Amino acid sequence: MSFLDRIAECNRHDLAGFVRFVVAGTPVGWVKRSFAARLTGFPDVFTVDDETVAISPLLATYEARTRAVADALRGFAADGTIKGWRGELYPVGAGFHGPHLLAMERTAIPFFGVRAYGVHVNGFVRRATGLEMWIGRRAVDKPTFPGMLDNFVAGGQPVGIGLLDNVIKEADEEAGVPAALARQARPIGLVSYCQETADGLKPDVLFNFDLELPDDFAPINRDGEIAAFHRWPVERVMAITETTRKFKFNCNLVNIDFFVRHGLIPPDHPDYVEIVRGLHG
Amino acid sequence: MSFLDRIAECNRHDLAGFVRFVVAGTPVGWVKRSFAARLTGFPDVFTVDDETVAISPLLATYEARTRAVADALRGFAADGTIKGWRGELYPVGAGFHGPHLLAMERTAIPFFGVRAYGVHVNGFVRRATGLEMWIGRRAVDKPTFPGMLDNFVAGGQPVGIGLLDNVIKEADEEAGVPAALARQARPIGLVSYCQETADGLKPDVLFNFDLELPDDFAPINRDGEIAAFHRWPVERVMAITETTRKFKFNCNLVNIDFFVRHGLIPPDHPDYVEIVRGLHG
Repeated sequence: MSFLDRIAECNRHDLAGFVRFVVAGTPVGWVKRSFAARLTGFPDVFTVDDETVAISPLLATYEARTRAVADALRGFAADGTIKGWRGELYPVGAGFHGPHLLAMERTAIPFFGVRAYGVHVNGFVRRATGLEMWIGRRAVDKPTFPGMLDNFVAGGQPVGIGLLDNVIKEADEEAGVPAALARQARPIGLVSYCQETADGLKPDVLFNFDLELPDDFAPINRDGEIAAFHRWPVERVMAITETTRKFKFNCNLVNIDFFVRHGLIPPDHPDYVEIVRGLHG
Repeated sequence: MSFLDRIAECNRHDLAGFVRFVVAGTPVGWVKRSFAARLTGFPDVFTVDDETVAISPLLATYEARTRAVADALRGFAADGTIKGWRGELYPVGAGFHGPHLLAMERTAIPFFGVRAYGVHVNGFVRRATGLEMWIGRRAVDKPTFPGMLDNFVAGGQPVGIGLLDNVIKEADEEAGVPAALARQARPIGLVSYCQETADGLKPDVLFNFDLELPDDFAPINRDGEIAAFHRWPVERVMAITETTRKFKFNCNLVNIDFFVRHGLIPPDHPDYVEIVRGLHG
């Protein structure tokens, strides 16, 4: 068990089982062949062949594509293929900053192998004895990864809200962080990975933030998504990350990036080059 | 002119013009076809075909390969093909931590497209007005990149010295940093790139360090390699990096990584994802 194992777990995929997802001539994702076959049932929305799933060129605008795709997907939600419909829209396009070609229900995003974005916040305290990190434990009734460890604050990045505003909103809901404190979260980079799941593909990017917290700050969860918070010496978080799968898979990458940037994994580590390069897979 | 231009300049290459360099069955680099043709003149050392340059299997040990390759390369130094022989050995192997298959003269490394490693130190001062960075200007008589801007302290990583010891040594020689201060340099990651040059290929890794300097520290160059040091507000270093080619090419990556980690390039930057991922090309 090693940091490289955690990175590898986030990057397992075999694109041979997928076809490209193309919108307005732009490749924006990947669809499993088995799901592509089911999309042939919607010829007004999806054009499917052996190589690609494309959105019909007759759907020529952002709004038309967004509406038509949502209508098609509702059937998959009804029959249980797409579980946990959230009514939250994610952007679909060639890059985070656009141009965006449509918006799509969050839960459907992996079925189309579209890159999703999130914000993850490392909450930490500087003590004379070293760094301590605030770590969340996900509620046991969460639909995804119940009971697993999580970063201090984390959330998906939907359309219609800026990154820092999303951090402030999530920090309030998940950990009761006052806005004035959350605003001090410092953007320090990102991690990326590409993981095949039962549904499809997650070629995702997490925008990371460091938030130094006062010694007397105590997080309070307000949305029921976090069962408990632990404040642990960073060495304990390192050991859990390196030797267990207790963290939700992608939180491990955020942790490892934190350890690297704070000089806690030395460059003499035999896997150092592969670790740092592996955070941007 | 943009940060992405600086990253692209470090990553221009076309592997079609190269063959693999193989040692003991392990691919460890790339050789330009024109240089591979010249290596056919040393059949006891190099086995050359259309796809590979290999070191003769009869050279079965680290020492035998190191000696035989050095002997063969001396002719290229004598005829001016390899310029500026330094008598400094770099490790050659599949990874930084080995196993190392031979050691090779530093100046010859790009001819064999072997990954070279360096240590680069961001020297900075925290002021009430923001960060300031110490920037070196290379001496005009340096054989490589004369007169260009450079990171505070930087050097290649030869065999036989640890990374932090190399930082301490280079910080002393290049900037007169006392060892006790240099030892506080914090390892914070690495940048990597792959640049084709007239000689060959540089698929290199730079181990990066942040060194916070006291306000009253003033660097003094002791080895004649730096003509002057400038202490500039980080915004000025950002503008130079973004809009000019005044820095030695790979120092731009170290600068950009610093800007990202210190929250100076916001994630709202339209190129943010490509910038951060591009630092690990």
